Amino acid sequence: MELSSLFLNSWLVKNWKITLAALLVIASVNFVRYITKLQRYTKIFKFSKHRKTLLDGEEYVCADFNSKGNKRAHNDTTPNISYVPALKVDKHVIFNGATVTLPGGPKQFYELANNRRSVRSYSAKRIPPFELIEECIRAASTAPSGAHTEPWTFCVISDPNIKQHVREIIETEEEMNYAQRMHRQWTADLTPLRTNHIKPYLTDAPYLILVFKQIYGFLPNGERKQHYYNEISVAIATGILLCALQAAGLNSLVTTPLNCGLALRRLLARPENEKLLLLLPVGYAADDCVVPDLKRKALEEIMHIY
Amino acid sequence: MELSSLFLNSWLVKNWKITLAALLVIASVNFVRYITKLQRYTKIFKFSKHRKTLLDGEEYVCADFNSKGNKRAHNDTTPNISYVPALKVDKHVIFNGATVTLPGGPKQFYELANNRRSVRSYSAKRIPPFELIEECIRAASTAPSGAHTEPWTFCVISDPNIKQHVREIIETEEEMNYAQRMHRQWTADLTPLRTNHIKPYLTDAPYLILVFKQIYGFLPNGERKQHYYNEISVAIATGILLCALQAAGLNSLVTTPLNCGLALRRLLARPENEKLLLLLPVGYAADDCVVPDLKRKALEEIMHIY
Repeated sequence: MELSSLFLNSWLVKNWKITLAALLVIASVNFVRYITKLQRYTKIFKFSKHRKTLLDGEEYVCADFNSKGNKRAHNDTTPNISYVPALKVDKHVIFNGATVTLPGGPKQFYELANNRRSVRSYSAKRIPPFELIEECIRAASTAPSGAHTEPWTFCVISDPNIKQHVREIIETEEEMNYAQRMHRQWTADLTPLRTNHIKPYLTDAPYLILVFKQIYGFLPNGERKQHYYNEISVAIATGILLCALQAAGLNSLVTTPLNCGLALRRLLARPENEKLLLLLPVGYAADDCVVPDLKRKALEEIMHIY
Repeated sequence: MELSSLFLNSWLVKNWKITLAALLVIASVNFVRYITKLQRYTKIFKFSKHRKTLLDGEEYVCADFNSKGNKRAHNDTTPNISYVPALKVDKHVIFNGATVTLPGGPKQFYELANNRRSVRSYSAKRIPPFELIEECIRAASTAPSGAHTEPWTFCVISDPNIKQHVREIIETEEEMNYAQRMHRQWTADLTPLRTNHIKPYLTDAPYLILVFKQIYGFLPNGERKQHYYNEISVAIATGILLCALQAAGLNSLVTTPLNCGLALRRLLARPENEKLLLLLPVGYAADDCVVPDLKRKALEEIMHIY
């Protein structure tokens, strides 16, 4: 009895309207949180513009069916036949397997790939002919892509003024990145590679290749075309590009200019559907070029057999 | 006067405590939404576990300094010297540029890469020796990676029972993907490639290579190690892997098994820091293998010169 009277006379019960209000607030906050979480898991293909399609917190499909350029919603009821594939394929043809290989097989290829190092110091005098760069980009463009959308744009800069502009944009942002935006553990993790916000390679290297991902494309009728898995596809193409550059005897460096995408896209007058993914200076290593004496992980660490 | 008495006698004023409660609820909901939005833009490096680090809506750094495994916050005030780089580099060495190339240069490499096609039909009888696969993965592991973290794990399955398990997991999910989860435009876009949820190649191909990205690693002292740009790094490594397989005369197919990551990770008993990025069946194309008669974009469409 004492307990119950203690309860009935308590501040919480006497001011029950305030208690109720507080409980309502808590409930509604939880409701909003629940809805947010629910959306993440169920409204898979209905995210807003520029958001990636998220599944189980792990996968980015990079498709967006909720944009203005798409006429039909996920729950559209028109018959299937009204959906026309973006890709035109007239026929399927017999494929005889890989007929062009390397005489030394994967061992020769390993030696080629293993000879590649990330180069941060370039000769400004030895200029590779442009045809080499062109052939390497042609090789990169053979990469597979989601539903064969080929969602890549390669911008090659050799004009010294434009390279200077690129350098200014990147150095300004990188100074802020290193000083403020990046966690100090991150900048510490980069010290063995001797990198900082000063990037002479952006003007020394004879060529800069800016690799853009096209987050969507356009159909002949002007409607928006989905580019599934565009980021992964473009990164795979860059892997092939690196091998081609090595085959050509050229050096390069894969960089991710943090927060520079918009400024660089505008500098090169690229359209809105293209987003910068990577920037590679390309050329020949300078005579005094040094690289960190890195060890690679052993095969047993990275490969598991089942 | 009439208006003000109308107001004072209104239900809202008479029941002012309920009104207040309702207003409080609305205010708190807006507060939560505001905080959520604020976090997305300013607390760049403090996202919770498994969320990607987002900058200007375009870049995924894939680093996470807010997890339990990290002792220090972004605004930590200890001196810089207390941050130790994860990578150990004893010295820098002179680099003489690319010394291993292809005799035919990038033209030969283009012909190699251009001969690759995505193969969905494999010979179950012609089994490539495991050494070929091993050498190809060794080549892939020479890829560059954010701060040289080498954030990849390659799982090679040749056991028929495990391949059967993989096939069951993927076909079950893919049936749901095609029927419910994928937008009908997406399934329409795939029809020219003749793909559906039935995947015989998962048991026919002699090998399945499952490519995992390690979203973080571990330091010798057990602390968490950041894997910057792990997704891009692993996709680049996969691009190199594709070239190595082609050099070895092997065929493959890059697939992204939608929503199967967790089940496949558990099947292979891989740790929590590894997330499935891609799955590649590998082997020799079947005798009756057909491929879509695709055209590639012209170089002028994908390359721009400045």
